[in-house]
Amino acid sequence: MKTDPSYTFRPSELEPARATALRHEIEAFNDEYCAVLDANLVEDWPRFFVADCVYRITARENAELGLPVGLVYAEGRGMLEDRAVAISRTQMFAPRYTLHMISNTRALRESADGEIAAEANFLLLQTLVEGATSIHMAGKFHDRFVRVDGRLLLKERQVVYDTTLIANDLVYPV
Amino acid sequence: MKTDPSYTFRPSELEPARATALRHEIEAFNDEYCAVLDANLVEDWPRFFVADCVYRITARENAELGLPVGLVYAEGRGMLEDRAVAISRTQMFAPRYTLHMISNTRALRESADGEIAAEANFLLLQTLVEGATSIHMAGKFHDRFVRVDGRLLLKERQVVYDTTLIANDLVYPV
Amino acid sequence: MKTDPSYTFRPSELEPARATALRHEIEAFNDEYCAVLDANLVEDWPRFFVADCVYRITARENAELGLPVGLVYAEGRGMLEDRAVAISRTQMFAPRYTLHMISNTRALRESADGEIAAEANFLLLQTLVEGATSIHMAGKFHDRFVRVDGRLLLKERQVVYDTTLIANDLVYPV
Repeated sequence: MKTDPSYTFRPSELEPARATALRHEIEAFNDEYCAVLDANLVEDWPRFFVADCVYRITARENAELGLPVGLVYAEGRGMLEDRAVAISRTQMFAPRYTLHMISNTRALRESADGEIAAEANFLLLQTLVEGATSIHMAGKFHDRFVRVDGRLLLKERQVVYDTTLIANDLVYPV
Repeated sequence: MKTDPSYTFRPSELEPARATALRHEIEAFNDEYCAVLDANLVEDWPRFFVADCVYRITARENAELGLPVGLVYAEGRGMLEDRAVAISRTQMFAPRYTLHMISNTRALRESADGEIAAEANFLLLQTLVEGATSIHMAGKFHDRFVRVDGRLLLKERQVVYDTTLIANDLVYPV
Repeated sequence: MKTDPSYTFRPSELEPARATALRHEIEAFNDEYCAVLDANLVEDWPRFFVADCVYRITARENAELGLPVGLVYAEGRGMLEDRAVAISRTQMFAPRYTLHMISNTRALRESADGEIAAEANFLLLQTLVEGATSIHMAGKFHDRFVRVDGRLLLKERQVVYDTTLIANDLVYPV
């Protein structure tokens, strides 16, 4: 079967100094994004996206085969907002803690109109009440950023996870 | 119950370029701090703190409720030194290896007198002799740094861990 | 028994601004290195090394005791190329995914002829088909880089793992 090249290795097309500057900016973005999610402020999550966005959570196998399906698919910030409200109303008290570790952030391309393609590795840890901490999911963010009023926002985030077995609960954003 | 706002999400109040510069400085500090601990040089650990410091290890649940208790609490570098000596004399040979992974470092505020508030995510891995590597603890550092002779030192480190079940052994610094 | 000082804590001898600049360059190198390995492009792996290189994977206990043995030892890029071809031909389809998380990168020294000593922590996650994600190996890279045509290449990479029990399968590069 053919492999979708978007999800295999892509060399950075950027000049090293520019790649580093963008990487630092993206790291700051992701660190704030994760701090919001790990504080369980899911209703604050859609503000990291532009109105006309795509958000998907899918398995690496599906992504590499170019399959459109996924665990979660949302088009437009409105769908993210609906989802966020639904999640936050379903569970008043979080029965678990999450912690995102982000590493290996790479800025890959920057278009003339300022759109940036990037990726980063994530490890999503989960701690159930009275429990040990375990690996909930690990994988890569495949992102496209745009700049609005000087700040980065997500135009597209594809959360591609390696972990095949996902606990079958209500899926929080990653 | 009321939640202590110090341990929930806090946006950075810093201008982006300043936040990035401080983050890089804090990352270098934490990387050296962790390298010392992971080399089992616990007696070298107090040198990362000012004399008038606070060090605490506590559960996220306790921190968020504003409870003063914790697994470990030390005021002043003298207490850290006593603790370090006690630990290093108790076990001549380390029965385990530790490895700290630090990510998601965020500089949040800087006061006029140079005190810096910051946080970072940590994953503390543990490997018992002849064993596999497992997650010992994961959580966040909530830090206040001051600058002495141009270099950062910890005025306060609150190690807030998600992991509820901690192996009931002699607690090493984190 | 005597401990080999190369594998215990080493303070950085670099001026802070230089250490930070080199760290960022090394992080970019390692992020690309890991992206290639995690995309299963093992035949592309030797290009990160100079012709006259050393690559070793060994247990922390062995490294600290100064023992020359290890799980994998290769001298010269030719040996890496042979190894890469052997691995890629043995398994046409990868039965697992890997994901490297790199953190705590430290630039330690830089010689007059531009050789750089550095270290970084790695966490190598593994996901078997239809399985959960688990910790395959964790430890430190102990590296020597040289600069060729302005770009970093590895003169030496010692992969020193804490994890004592390694799954007894064909060993991929780390």
